[in-house]
Amino acid sequence: MHHTEHTVTVDAPAEVVWKVLVDVEGYARIFPPTQEVVMLEESPQHQIARLTVDVNGEIQSWVSRRDIDSTRKVIAYRQLENAPMMGYMGGEWRALAIDDTTTQLVLTHDFKPRDPVDGKVAGKFTYAEADEMIKAAVERNSVADLGAVKEQAEKTAVEGASA
Amino acid sequence: MHHTEHTVTVDAPAEVVWKVLVDVEGYARIFPPTQEVVMLEESPQHQIARLTVDVNGEIQSWVSRRDIDSTRKVIAYRQLENAPMMGYMGGEWRALAIDDTTTQLVLTHDFKPRDPVDGKVAGKFTYAEADEMIKAAVERNSVADLGAVKEQAEKTAVEGASA
Repeated sequence: MHHTEHTVTVDAPAEVVWKVLVDVEGYARIFPPTQEVVMLEESPQHQIARLTVDVNGEIQSWVSRRDIDSTRKVIAYRQLENAPMMGYMGGEWRALAIDDTTTQLVLTHDFKPRDPVDGKVAGKFTYAEADEMIKAAVERNSVADLGAVKEQAEKTAVEGASA
Repeated sequence: MHHTEHTVTVDAPAEVVWKVLVDVEGYARIFPPTQEVVMLEESPQHQIARLTVDVNGEIQSWVSRRDIDSTRKVIAYRQLENAPMMGYMGGEWRALAIDDTTTQLVLTHDFKPRDPVDGKVAGKFTYAEADEMIKAAVERNSVADLGAVKEQAEKTAVEGASA
């Protein structure tokens, strides 16, 4: 299992960043590759949603469970129904206050490829190839996802301040 | 100027991580490349120290100023007297509580190479070469430095818990 952590400083209060993170249905607006988010189940402590995402030009779909800890401002997510190449995908979003106006936004991933069938993952790749492709995608998407949440939160903070 | 942020989750309270960060003279023990740290000036809010470090087999030395914000648990550091290839090097160490027993440790860097003299940085490299070398070193050292602080803080937390 691989573990990665990525982070970015956001010029917005943790409360503002947190609202962007919790609004999973808004992801289709702020993450361009996300085509659609359908909420399947929801409570103040959890969300189960089907995401449809453009992964390198191929439309893929998976179901994610998100456990919401609004005290610590941490969302633990994991795929209940995995994306085609994935054996496991989970991790956390964290919005940690540095001070009243600045937030450390963190995204962690724990992941491994799907076990190969007849030597192939998703009918196409060796395990090592799938592993490399997923690692590269996590690296690329982490930077993009953190950047999208940062941009949205900073925009909201500026609008809130001028309202 | 480049800006990077690296992070790791530490299984120790923020207060324990903070003590490791503030103890700059202890860096010679926990970061193997650090040969010596000599404190030149010190107050509860700042430290000025000369560090002597093995950089890829070459002994280099520089003077760092560290401004200490113990409320936010943030240390802002910058080189007052730069390392040979460096035009600017600064950034922050942050110890952010995720909960009572877990800390998000963050290390940021803002840096650029020294301006070339007669087309060369430090008499040896083009600006682009120096830039690539420094970027690679920051990437490598960030992972190593975060790992060293994590290891020391987790060791201290376990010893404290069993005392």
